[in-house]
Amino acid sequence: MTGKVRPRIALDAMGGDDAPLSAVLGAIQAAERFGDELQVVLVGDGAAIERVRPAHELEKLGMEIVHSSESVGMGESATGSYRKKQDSSIAVANRLVSEGKVDAIVSAGNTGAVVTASLLGLSRIKGVLRPAIASIVPTVHGRSLLLDVGAVADAKPANLFQFAVMGRVYAETVQGTKKPRVGLLNIGEEREKGSDLYKQAFRLLEERAAEINFIGNVEGRDVLSGDVDVVVCDGFTGNVLLKFAESIIGVVNGTIRKELGKSLVHKFGALLMKPVFAKLKARLNYEEVGGAPLLGVNGIVVIAHGSSSPLAIRNAIHMAAAMAQERVVAKIGEELSRELLREEATG
Amino acid sequence: MTGKVRPRIALDAMGGDDAPLSAVLGAIQAAERFGDELQVVLVGDGAAIERVRPAHELEKLGMEIVHSSESVGMGESATGSYRKKQDSSIAVANRLVSEGKVDAIVSAGNTGAVVTASLLGLSRIKGVLRPAIASIVPTVHGRSLLLDVGAVADAKPANLFQFAVMGRVYAETVQGTKKPRVGLLNIGEEREKGSDLYKQAFRLLEERAAEINFIGNVEGRDVLSGDVDVVVCDGFTGNVLLKFAESIIGVVNGTIRKELGKSLVHKFGALLMKPVFAKLKARLNYEEVGGAPLLGVNGIVVIAHGSSSPLAIRNAIHMAAAMAQERVVAKIGEELSRELLREEATG
Repeated sequence: MTGKVRPRIALDAMGGDDAPLSAVLGAIQAAERFGDELQVVLVGDGAAIERVRPAHELEKLGMEIVHSSESVGMGESATGSYRKKQDSSIAVANRLVSEGKVDAIVSAGNTGAVVTASLLGLSRIKGVLRPAIASIVPTVHGRSLLLDVGAVADAKPANLFQFAVMGRVYAETVQGTKKPRVGLLNIGEEREKGSDLYKQAFRLLEERAAEINFIGNVEGRDVLSGDVDVVVCDGFTGNVLLKFAESIIGVVNGTIRKELGKSLVHKFGALLMKPVFAKLKARLNYEEVGGAPLLGVNGIVVIAHGSSSPLAIRNAIHMAAAMAQERVVAKIGEELSRELLREEATG
Repeated sequence: MTGKVRPRIALDAMGGDDAPLSAVLGAIQAAERFGDELQVVLVGDGAAIERVRPAHELEKLGMEIVHSSESVGMGESATGSYRKKQDSSIAVANRLVSEGKVDAIVSAGNTGAVVTASLLGLSRIKGVLRPAIASIVPTVHGRSLLLDVGAVADAKPANLFQFAVMGRVYAETVQGTKKPRVGLLNIGEEREKGSDLYKQAFRLLEERAAEINFIGNVEGRDVLSGDVDVVVCDGFTGNVLLKFAESIIGVVNGTIRKELGKSLVHKFGALLMKPVFAKLKARLNYEEVGGAPLLGVNGIVVIAHGSSSPLAIRNAIHMAAAMAQERVVAKIGEELSRELLREEATG
């Protein structure tokens, strides 16, 4: 690990809806803004990257380009693409991590393909049953973590328990939250609420309530309240919730715009209120957060939204560098090996 | 059924956070506004109801009061309260339905208690495996239906199939949607996406795609889009989603207010834009929809939000009357008996 110096972040230049444009522009923004904290390695079709900016300009910013001959489309099957495309940008980025040549990966590509490539290329941290995608959620007071948002559609109670442990490590180290409050997403606060999966997960979490700082069940309305720092759920529920949340900014904008169109007075009012709307948009706009860390694989992987703007890519690169600096992977390993030792002692 | 004349709606006066205040005021609003379409029967503690308005005033509006000596608290266990409190307002309201004295029930009380009392008091429509709570969701273009939002936390594929059938009947008859588009909430559009539950439900729905007008998998972002009329999911996912959605108006309001406090210019802008915000609030405010129909029990039950305003209660009463007029219960029975016949013929 070169983590303590300047973490090297491999950016999948072929990921994202308008690849490689936003990726390359985001990499440039990251190099300009955080060049003293991190290094960007662009992975992808060299010619396509050069069409955005000539290589010598990118090199001037301290960026390296690693050529890959293939890329995975947004609609491609995750496992199929991994087997068939050994030289895809995401597969090459994973190899760079496992060879120790970079410290982290950022990709705005096909989420399923990123998860599969990372699982197969990096494997899991010892003790981790399944990895989780954690989404950073803007709340009333700051930011919370929602996980899993799509890696594990059919979760087991033990998966949810581990998501809680991994989420707490992330919140504590990267987000700097002191004693993060961990809650289990459920349909009521009482311990007997929910499906069998959640009732069993509650019991597992309750046994370690003090170590995990488990505050019990939380509900849908608590996700944005800021009263809980890590919200644990299965990947099905989390994914539905996240995609719903992402759609709200559009509904709010659409409604306001539709009404504004009808009146000059309203339009003038909106002009005066512009900074207020900017704040509201920043609060509700999930894309600007940057990316979603994939926790549990034996390496640092940040998944950015397919429609990421260059700013979102820049922030995702910065997030990956912070994860490297904070040694998140090692810390998750330590926490879970402690759990394994405990199980061996009691089992 | 007196449905064809003026449906008689039993309102659980003891349900809701500030019972019986909002309930009684909502009943008055319903009688004043829709008195020629429906009749309200108030069920609850006579003395408490009279403290809001004297009985003779309520009678002048054509309202009847049926006394019940008990009520179920918001925190009470659903099955326990049903066994112990045979004279609770919700139990009495259910008896009125099964005795044919009223055509429908509206309650803003403890949801679990309402579901249990209705299941045990009215039993299920023949062929229905489990009932579902359907939530009316405001979309970009109008309204859609999301079900189940909390009756069945551990759903089976056959439950989801029936939710689709029941939701379609409701959308077609009460909401007047022609050929409602039915979608399965999932984490991707492809047929192989999701948990085992959803993969199996997809296959069941696909077999009857033409009759149900099943359009396939939809995602979290489609719930508010207006591109689907009936969104089918399990009660765990639906409940989490609904409570999350309900919390958004608060976050939007809170953010706008916080920013407004900082500047007179912004405040002036907000004043000019007041009607726009009213529209936005109306769009995002789930409480004003009225209530959530409980579909699948052998009688009409509408569950209102615990914090329902009198207006919400009024709308819930109107919704129950529409369900009676449209013979929703009988139509669900017909649809499902057709399914049963088909199974017998093929099985």
